[in-house]
Amino acid sequence: MIDGSTPFEASHAVLADPEYRAALVDLFGVLAYGELVAFERLAADAAMAPRVADKAALAGMATAEYRHFLALRERLVELGADPDQAMEPFRRPIDEFHAHTKPADWLEGLVKAYVGDGIGTDFYREISAYVDPASRELVLDVCGDLGQSAFVVDRVRAAIAADPRVAGRLALWGRRLVGEALSQAQRVAAERDALSTFLVGGTDRPGVDLAEIGRMLARLTDSHTQRMQELGLAA
Amino acid sequence: MIDGSTPFEASHAVLADPEYRAALVDLFGVLAYGELVAFERLAADAAMAPRVADKAALAGMATAEYRHFLALRERLVELGADPDQAMEPFRRPIDEFHAHTKPADWLEGLVKAYVGDGIGTDFYREISAYVDPASRELVLDVCGDLGQSAFVVDRVRAAIAADPRVAGRLALWGRRLVGEALSQAQRVAAERDALSTFLVGGTDRPGVDLAEIGRMLARLTDSHTQRMQELGLAA
Repeated sequence: MIDGSTPFEASHAVLADPEYRAALVDLFGVLAYGELVAFERLAADAAMAPRVADKAALAGMATAEYRHFLALRERLVELGADPDQAMEPFRRPIDEFHAHTKPADWLEGLVKAYVGDGIGTDFYREISAYVDPASRELVLDVCGDLGQSAFVVDRVRAAIAADPRVAGRLALWGRRLVGEALSQAQRVAAERDALSTFLVGGTDRPGVDLAEIGRMLARLTDSHTQRMQELGLAA
Repeated sequence: MIDGSTPFEASHAVLADPEYRAALVDLFGVLAYGELVAFERLAADAAMAPRVADKAALAGMATAEYRHFLALRERLVELGADPDQAMEPFRRPIDEFHAHTKPADWLEGLVKAYVGDGIGTDFYREISAYVDPASRELVLDVCGDLGQSAFVVDRVRAAIAADPRVAGRLALWGRRLVGEALSQAQRVAAERDALSTFLVGGTDRPGVDLAEIGRMLARLTDSHTQRMQELGLAA
C-alpha cells in the first residue's frame, strides 16, 4: 500500500477484486453477528450480576459491543452488501457455540466473556494483518478491549481467593470454551469459501503460507494460556 | 417557578428541603434501576428475536435505556446521593416483578415491553407534574418512547393476523402484567415513605388530593386499555 495513495483510496482500488470483497463481507459479517451476540451475552451476564454496580459495568460494556455492531453494519452497507444476508451464514455456528456454552452462573459468564472473546479477538487481529488499512483499522477498533479484562480478572481472582475450589471448575470451563470455539471455527472455515480461500489461498493467488498459519495458532494458544493464568486458572 | 430564576436555580432552591430531596432520590433511584433492568430485558428479548434485523432493533432500544440509566445515575450523583444505595430499595420489587412475569416467548416479551413499560412510564409522567422543572425534564426524557411502540404493535398484529388464537393468550398475559405491576407498586408505596409522603402528603404538607389520585388512576387505566387495543388485544 506504499504507493502514495491514501489508505481509503487504496482500499477502494483493492475492493475492485470481487473475491477480496466477498472475503471482507464474510469477515465483517461474522464480526457483526458476533458483536450483536456479544451484546446479548454481556447483557445476560449483567442480569446475573450480584451487585448493582457490576450490572451497570457489564451493561456499559454491552452497549459498547452494540456500537461496534453498528460500525460493522455501516461498513457492510458501504461495501454494497446487505448486512442481514452477510451475517446470516454465521448465525448457526455462533448461536450453537453459545447454546453449547451457556454459563451456569455469574463466574462462568465472566470467564466466558474474557477467555472466549479473547480467543476470538486475537484471531481477528491476526486476520487484520492481511487486509487493507481501512479494513484493518475497523477490525482493530471493534476488537479493542472495552475494560472487560481488568473487570473480569478482578472479580474472578476475588472469587478464587474466597473459595479456592472454584479454580478447578473454572479451569475445566475454560477448556470447554476453547474446544467449542475451535469446532465451530472449523465449521465456518469449511463452509465459507471466500473467507478461507482468502487465508489459505486459491487457484490463482497464494495465501498465507502454512508455516505462518502454524505460528499464528501457536500465538493464539500462548495468549489463551496467558489469559487463563491471569485469572489464576490452569490452562 | 415563575420568579425570574432559571429552572436549574429554582431546582437548587427547592432541593434545600430535605424531604423533597429524599423523594427525588427515591424517584430517580427507582427510575434508574428500572432502566437498568429494562436494558437487560430488552437485550434478552433481542436474544429471542427470530430475525437478525429484529435483534438489532431491540438491541438498539436496549442501549437507549442504558443511556437513560446513565443520565439518572448522573443526576443522583448531582443530588449528592450514592446511586447504588438509591437503587437498592427498589431491587427486590423490580426483580420480583420480572421474576413473576418471565416471557415464555418472543411475543410475550414484546407485549411486556409495550404494556408493562407503558404503565410504568405513564405513572412516572404523572408524578413528573409535581416536581421541579429540571427534574420533570429528566423524567419526561427517560420516559420517552424509543420507537418500541410502533415496532411492537407491528410485530404483534402480524402474529395475530397469522394465527388469531395468539390474541387470547396474549390478552391474558397483559392482564397478568398489570396485576403484578400493581402489587409491586403497592409494596413500594408501603415501604418508601419519602416517595409516598411526597404524593399523598405528610404531617405539615398537603399532598395531591385524593380526587386527583383517583383521576390519575383512571387515566392510567384508560391508557392501558388503549395500548391493548392497539395491539389488537382485549384489555
